[in-house]
Amino acid sequence: METKNRLDEVAVEELATRFEGKGPEVVIQWALEHFHPRIVLASSLQAEDMVILDIAWRINPDVRVFTLDTGRLHEETYASMERVREKYGIAIESFFPSREAVEALEREKGFYSFRQSVEERKFCCGIRKVEPLARALKDRDAWITGLRREQAVTRTVLRKVEFDHSHGIIKVNPLADCSEGYVWDYIRTHGVPYNALHDLGYPSIGCAPCTRAIKQGEDVRAGRWWWENPESKECGLHVTPVETGQSTA
Amino acid sequence: METKNRLDEVAVEELATRFEGKGPEVVIQWALEHFHPRIVLASSLQAEDMVILDIAWRINPDVRVFTLDTGRLHEETYASMERVREKYGIAIESFFPSREAVEALEREKGFYSFRQSVEERKFCCGIRKVEPLARALKDRDAWITGLRREQAVTRTVLRKVEFDHSHGIIKVNPLADCSEGYVWDYIRTHGVPYNALHDLGYPSIGCAPCTRAIKQGEDVRAGRWWWENPESKECGLHVTPVETGQSTA
Amino acid sequence: METKNRLDEVAVEELATRFEGKGPEVVIQWALEHFHPRIVLASSLQAEDMVILDIAWRINPDVRVFTLDTGRLHEETYASMERVREKYGIAIESFFPSREAVEALEREKGFYSFRQSVEERKFCCGIRKVEPLARALKDRDAWITGLRREQAVTRTVLRKVEFDHSHGIIKVNPLADCSEGYVWDYIRTHGVPYNALHDLGYPSIGCAPCTRAIKQGEDVRAGRWWWENPESKECGLHVTPVETGQSTA
Amino acid sequence: METKNRLDEVAVEELATRFEGKGPEVVIQWALEHFHPRIVLASSLQAEDMVILDIAWRINPDVRVFTLDTGRLHEETYASMERVREKYGIAIESFFPSREAVEALEREKGFYSFRQSVEERKFCCGIRKVEPLARALKDRDAWITGLRREQAVTRTVLRKVEFDHSHGIIKVNPLADCSEGYVWDYIRTHGVPYNALHDLGYPSIGCAPCTRAIKQGEDVRAGRWWWENPESKECGLHVTPVETGQSTA
Repeated sequence: METKNRLDEVAVEELATRFEGKGPEVVIQWALEHFHPRIVLASSLQAEDMVILDIAWRINPDVRVFTLDTGRLHEETYASMERVREKYGIAIESFFPSREAVEALEREKGFYSFRQSVEERKFCCGIRKVEPLARALKDRDAWITGLRREQAVTRTVLRKVEFDHSHGIIKVNPLADCSEGYVWDYIRTHGVPYNALHDLGYPSIGCAPCTRAIKQGEDVRAGRWWWENPESKECGLHVTPVETGQSTA
Repeated sequence: METKNRLDEVAVEELATRFEGKGPEVVIQWALEHFHPRIVLASSLQAEDMVILDIAWRINPDVRVFTLDTGRLHEETYASMERVREKYGIAIESFFPSREAVEALEREKGFYSFRQSVEERKFCCGIRKVEPLARALKDRDAWITGLRREQAVTRTVLRKVEFDHSHGIIKVNPLADCSEGYVWDYIRTHGVPYNALHDLGYPSIGCAPCTRAIKQGEDVRAGRWWWENPESKECGLHVTPVETGQSTA
Repeated sequence: METKNRLDEVAVEELATRFEGKGPEVVIQWALEHFHPRIVLASSLQAEDMVILDIAWRINPDVRVFTLDTGRLHEETYASMERVREKYGIAIESFFPSREAVEALEREKGFYSFRQSVEERKFCCGIRKVEPLARALKDRDAWITGLRREQAVTRTVLRKVEFDHSHGIIKVNPLADCSEGYVWDYIRTHGVPYNALHDLGYPSIGCAPCTRAIKQGEDVRAGRWWWENPESKECGLHVTPVETGQSTA
Repeated sequence: METKNRLDEVAVEELATRFEGKGPEVVIQWALEHFHPRIVLASSLQAEDMVILDIAWRINPDVRVFTLDTGRLHEETYASMERVREKYGIAIESFFPSREAVEALEREKGFYSFRQSVEERKFCCGIRKVEPLARALKDRDAWITGLRREQAVTRTVLRKVEFDHSHGIIKVNPLADCSEGYVWDYIRTHGVPYNALHDLGYPSIGCAPCTRAIKQGEDVRAGRWWWENPESKECGLHVTPVETGQSTA
């Protein structure tokens, strides 16, 4: 039922308020009950993603999970995808960039154009992440992410339930108010597999040439696009309403 | 002129005989004079490829070079592509796999299906290498490779000029009778940039999960698809006439 | 009591026979009860070592663990040591090579002498592993290892309790008859942390330049000193009685 | 002649002034003529070190080179040492940390104590770098480094010839006023081998867990001990007179 799944702005705001202070299990349980199978869990195989995957799988082992295989990931990240397949029996739905777009990018600008400017970096993200994400969310009513407010200055006002204006669907952020400590406690307690890069000092997992080690406890996005200012550090997957200035009326 | 570039079987055999014992420069000079711009140099950024690129570039700086960006390469290999851009001013023509094919592969078989059997491995190579190669060679009359007879039991009868039945064009192998020593002497003498993986013990450069260190001087293909028998270790890029049993008549 | 801990040849043989077919927990329980605190667990942070550590720690959280920090380990291996400290509260006792010996080795033979011959490789192992091991076992009555018969052609006759003639103490191999499957089942079931290199295809963990990926299920020692014959692939830590020909009478 | 080699404070200041604006070759030529064989070149195998090594070796192939093998270096760094041996025939003199000190450090504080505070990091540097350096410089009259003023806020006042109060000998910095561009131009032009980590975005080479990628052109020390303030980022190898406040009178 399309109508069943559609939420208006008021309902979204009420839900966000209701879930504030509630644990991730409560939010995920609601989301899966309300939207499955028209809801999908986004995973870049980083710690937060593994936690929401583990919680969601315990609630519904048929939960759908997708990843963006950008073509420049660490081998450790693919290994984590394989761990998910083994432990949970989940075939992660992979979204790969357009052949034509990557070929044009690499032929014209070379293999490290993203180092030249924020614009070039966003152009690369656009091809490898933003366009595939749009396909991943097409015909869905909602998606679940592992975003946390603590992760970045661009994420401090994150709500647990939002209307994602970029994609026209609901976005659920069950870990919005969780700390890094919560994430790792969950992983240790439940024996959740996690990306080996974390143990090498990488808190945020992205493309190999665009991710580096940071200090534990520091703004985790310091390890991504480190040559840019914090304010510009989003790849376009998670656009805030303020940025877009769009209205849902 | 199409006619100018076409060689019949007899001419190919005569050329192969003529070039036996001749240095790579002679063969590359002839190939570029005869076929440019309808000839292209294949590069996986391994040592042999860097040597033929350096020789070809000294003869004609407009030489065309392509690579197969499989989506699972080592970061060191991309870094080598960037060195080529910097030193030679050559924009390597990248060929990337089909989005739909990679997505289908990964969703159905996971991210390490190539470890399961020779068939699965060749299926993956088909998507990430063989199909893109066919596009790279389309509308060309010839291609130049860095193949050497010493590299593998599947390559001992390699000719310096061959008719490539798989692609219907001429294939030129200027290093066919060169030793590994020749390759490294050339690199050291001419200050040619080379893939850093070589210094870490990788003699043959391929996809990251399918390449490993080997002993210097050992069959270099021992570092590729090490779980398979030597006889099956070709990815389909370099098919021998014997295997195909095809006739050009 | 020295006398309490000393076992004669007959007792060792009887114990080995008694423990054949018994699970690792039984063997480790006996070993700790009989020898603690004069027993020590050897760990190179590979999967087997993590299993015996987890079992031993559940029996006695004061179990002593040592490792050989050869100075050429993978960063992933150090990260695993840190996981042990975090999860089990165990400060791994590190044994480091002699400064003078490493300096003499590197100055005279360079930094890759081990690639030249079995003798040179064993000379390096002697400095970085064998001598530190002797110190680790000094004043102990027994040690516990993660050796398994399946791992190598040099290990097929391994007993669960042996007299270690090289070091003059008892050697306990609780996993001697365990399969690789047992090891990984234990790790998954108990949420035991493990070296991330395993997920990248490295089954046997050693020094970084001397370890490479192998096929899952293959002789795991194929990833160590791959330029040598299987028969010569021991670093001197685990010498068999046949080799030494020593008598304990 | 001891007396020949000794320089007083006035002579040092005059030399520093004389060499300001002079090329590295001039400075190195003077240093080798004046001090050899009681002068040694320090190399951590990073780009600057390769340049001074190449220049020095062209002047005197018997130039002495040492490195600090801290026991936590990248494999790429050892590979670079091997390239030096191959190309220049120079056996790099390795200095390794004290066995007892490393064992005590790791047993008491674990394997990542340097992440906890500046003091702990300096304690680790003390064991792995500062003490071995003192041995490397013992009985020498001078040392040559690849330091550049641009590299760090702690290095802006670097002189080309200094009295090194910490070690009581002369310190020669031939690249003090050279740009990063100069270094790479020299490397490309002369075909000098360089550490592969540079191509992966690491401008400054140190211990593996304490070095990360930075932006090209950024303060190169941003890749070292990134969890600390710029002002504290020296490992104790290069102490400025201001810091020590010592007088040589």
